[in-house]
Amino acid sequence: MEFSQHNDGMMIDFYELTMSNGFFSSGKASTKAVFDVFYRHNPDHGGFSIFAGLGQALEWILNLRFTGRDIDYLKSLHTFKPEFLEFLRDFRFRGEVRAFDEGTIMYPREPVITVIGSLAECMFLETAVLAIINHQSLIATKARRMVRAAQGRPIADFGARRAHNLDAAVYGARAAYIGGLVATSTVEAGELFGIPVSGTMAHSWIMSFDSEYDAFKAYAEEYPDNTVLLIDTYDVMRSGLPNAIRLAHEYLEPNGKRLKAVRIDSGDLAYLSKKMRHELDKAGLKDCGIVLTNSLDEFTVNSLLTQGAEVNSFGIGERLITAQSEPILGGVYKMAAIEEGGVMQPRIKISESAEKITNPGLKQVWRIYNQDHKAVADLISHDTETVDLTHNFHYIDPVNPWRDRAFAPGFEARPLQHLYVKDGKQVREQKPLKEIRQFVIEQLSNEIWDEEQRFENPHVHFLDMTPDYYRMKMELLEKMRQKVAKITDSFAG
Amino acid sequence: MEFSQHNDGMMIDFYELTMSNGFFSSGKASTKAVFDVFYRHNPDHGGFSIFAGLGQALEWILNLRFTGRDIDYLKSLHTFKPEFLEFLRDFRFRGEVRAFDEGTIMYPREPVITVIGSLAECMFLETAVLAIINHQSLIATKARRMVRAAQGRPIADFGARRAHNLDAAVYGARAAYIGGLVATSTVEAGELFGIPVSGTMAHSWIMSFDSEYDAFKAYAEEYPDNTVLLIDTYDVMRSGLPNAIRLAHEYLEPNGKRLKAVRIDSGDLAYLSKKMRHELDKAGLKDCGIVLTNSLDEFTVNSLLTQGAEVNSFGIGERLITAQSEPILGGVYKMAAIEEGGVMQPRIKISESAEKITNPGLKQVWRIYNQDHKAVADLISHDTETVDLTHNFHYIDPVNPWRDRAFAPGFEARPLQHLYVKDGKQVREQKPLKEIRQFVIEQLSNEIWDEEQRFENPHVHFLDMTPDYYRMKMELLEKMRQKVAKITDSFAG
Repeated sequence: MEFSQHNDGMMIDFYELTMSNGFFSSGKASTKAVFDVFYRHNPDHGGFSIFAGLGQALEWILNLRFTGRDIDYLKSLHTFKPEFLEFLRDFRFRGEVRAFDEGTIMYPREPVITVIGSLAECMFLETAVLAIINHQSLIATKARRMVRAAQGRPIADFGARRAHNLDAAVYGARAAYIGGLVATSTVEAGELFGIPVSGTMAHSWIMSFDSEYDAFKAYAEEYPDNTVLLIDTYDVMRSGLPNAIRLAHEYLEPNGKRLKAVRIDSGDLAYLSKKMRHELDKAGLKDCGIVLTNSLDEFTVNSLLTQGAEVNSFGIGERLITAQSEPILGGVYKMAAIEEGGVMQPRIKISESAEKITNPGLKQVWRIYNQDHKAVADLISHDTETVDLTHNFHYIDPVNPWRDRAFAPGFEARPLQHLYVKDGKQVREQKPLKEIRQFVIEQLSNEIWDEEQRFENPHVHFLDMTPDYYRMKMELLEKMRQKVAKITDSFAG
Repeated sequence: MEFSQHNDGMMIDFYELTMSNGFFSSGKASTKAVFDVFYRHNPDHGGFSIFAGLGQALEWILNLRFTGRDIDYLKSLHTFKPEFLEFLRDFRFRGEVRAFDEGTIMYPREPVITVIGSLAECMFLETAVLAIINHQSLIATKARRMVRAAQGRPIADFGARRAHNLDAAVYGARAAYIGGLVATSTVEAGELFGIPVSGTMAHSWIMSFDSEYDAFKAYAEEYPDNTVLLIDTYDVMRSGLPNAIRLAHEYLEPNGKRLKAVRIDSGDLAYLSKKMRHELDKAGLKDCGIVLTNSLDEFTVNSLLTQGAEVNSFGIGERLITAQSEPILGGVYKMAAIEEGGVMQPRIKISESAEKITNPGLKQVWRIYNQDHKAVADLISHDTETVDLTHNFHYIDPVNPWRDRAFAPGFEARPLQHLYVKDGKQVREQKPLKEIRQFVIEQLSNEIWDEEQRFENPHVHFLDMTPDYYRMKMELLEKMRQKVAKITDSFAG
């Protein structure tokens, strides 16, 4: 039973424990600090990503415990002091979590989650929260790309068998639903999250009967209202399709039923689907759908439709559930501030590459809408600032800071970060999954420029700053420059 | 608590339930059948893969249950008949599982797992078994490529935060260890599987102190025997490295301790590592190791070493834990035989592409060793055949079946499939994880041609057949050809 004896509270990187233990010796364990979760690039050179996984992340945080067995194990490593192990025994997360609502369209470098707590407790959240958010956001974003490519045709997730183990299938199905898929084949995801489940037959069903027709008929007898037949076991055009048409005429129609759809999972899908449509129509089965599956993704779906493939819906598997073309969303967890003498001081992480420089301090992110309710930019402010758009609002574009820019009166600013956990208690509820999915659809239909949604060279969403916030960041960078120069000088001799 | 309320028994594709339910109506639910797990291509155009995940897969199979809640959920879908739901209520897997030992070097089209059971029960195993085996085998194989590229330098897994959710991190760490890594940062994997854990500090440790030197010193005070310092927070050559050297001289050495290693996670790793080595040596710290991390994989590791990078060990994260360059191992679960009139009849799945044609029937796979104990080929036989290599043994190479080939006397044949589960009970124990890892090392060091292990155009391992087995397969193909021709004729009119 070793595999199922998890305590997922131990989904922690070892360095989080060595650091937390070290903070006890340095007298910093209870020092308050602020950490931000953000990412740096949209996968597949996209123009946006979908923030997903918050529900699972919050559940993980609020249930974080260390069992006696965990503590015995850690003790056996001869690395941790007794005081620290005692701290683990009673551990509960008692800090604060601010976050974007799940399903929010997100952009690089925005703090989608902010954790405020003691250094000792903040350490523990990095790995699990990142794994959850990176995974679900990656799959939701990938799913949305496929939904866009399918141009209104429904897509079901058939990916579980190629997922990176069990939770990747179950939570991946959830994320794919947030991204706009209509169903999943993974029953556990249907049960846990209420996602519609779908699926009909494998080749093994056909091979279990003496003939393909017998297999089709047995299925139709069992599921007369949901007869979707897999027709590529022997030969699509010479066996599968003729048998399906025969079934429709000889069995379904006399019983007042219709053949719902036929599915193929191999061969040249574009070519075959057109031939199939022609034959089905000729047989009076214009209402019979065609389902295509087989290593599809947004690129092949797009190509199929460009070639005029006749298809009513798609089943998409391995390339969705692994986000095959770019299977990594590189979210990070970085310190943004630390208490000094009772005051929270912003901290910045410098880097040789400008885009890796962090945004310091406790922040709010505002989404700015024009009069047509289009999201024209996001704006970072101090968390205490208000953004008053009743008159011209001057802001800084950090890429071109010399330009004088302002939002016109009548624009609207909505805060994206919300308080989800206070003093270790959840104070804001998650929306139900169906509403999260609907929220994504509404943002992408109404608010987000289509130019950000195209696959090729999408428009780069603006991430602006209030003048006060920008000034603070520049001052901090200047201090850091002086600090490094001083260190450098001290080693120059 | 929705996320942790799993019953992983529901990690099943919906079509497995609709088919199983359908078999009850067709009177086939208890018909015995045989299913094989196999894959078709090695990831990354490699010459072999490592079979991993068997332990987790067996545990899943033997614990497969449906709870009352599961059954209520399924009932709510109005798809299943009461008789089937009752069958689920008492369900236990009562069949047989044969499998390669975990850690066996495997090749495309070999039945690495064979399931024998009733059609109704065989259906349920497809999705979870594939997700587990595909995932762990993929990561073990990827890890081995990195181990090879590192040329003897140890590698630790630092990938959890970019894994596809929690169990991808934990079981991925296990698989990576099987593939030859020496440690993981994922504490849960350390606790569950006894894998050595490693990790020291993040940038946030450095940023929590007034100066980099103070941060280093605090760490050394806590961990004087394991002082591994992250030196790229401000400036590697002008701050991090000089501070580390100062710490070695001013604090560690006076206390009789040595600086164990320095780590960098950014910048030009080849260039910096050489400069670092030079400075460390000059400072009398020849024994201080250099650890490199930052989006590495077998290709970048290879490139670093070609450039003469100075490195003692690697930490490898996202590109390992997601198998980024090819994140899919496409294992499938296909029917190989079905009972007819009390006799097990082989079944073949044909396809337009020759390599997708399955190997029918109950089989054994033999690894054939020459006199030097090198694995020269694998050989498929009927499961009841014996392979006697005391004299010339004629076999068929299915790619060139007209050639007369034989294994010389003195060659050795070892069966790769073993009986693991009989009548629903485990009858063969898994080896402990450390032995599985050692088994991989021994096979690759002693048995598997180096020509199969190179990255570029590896030798393709032979998968031969006994004459009897080959004849049966050809006869089945011919029958299938006639069957399709007959169907075709019947629709020709």
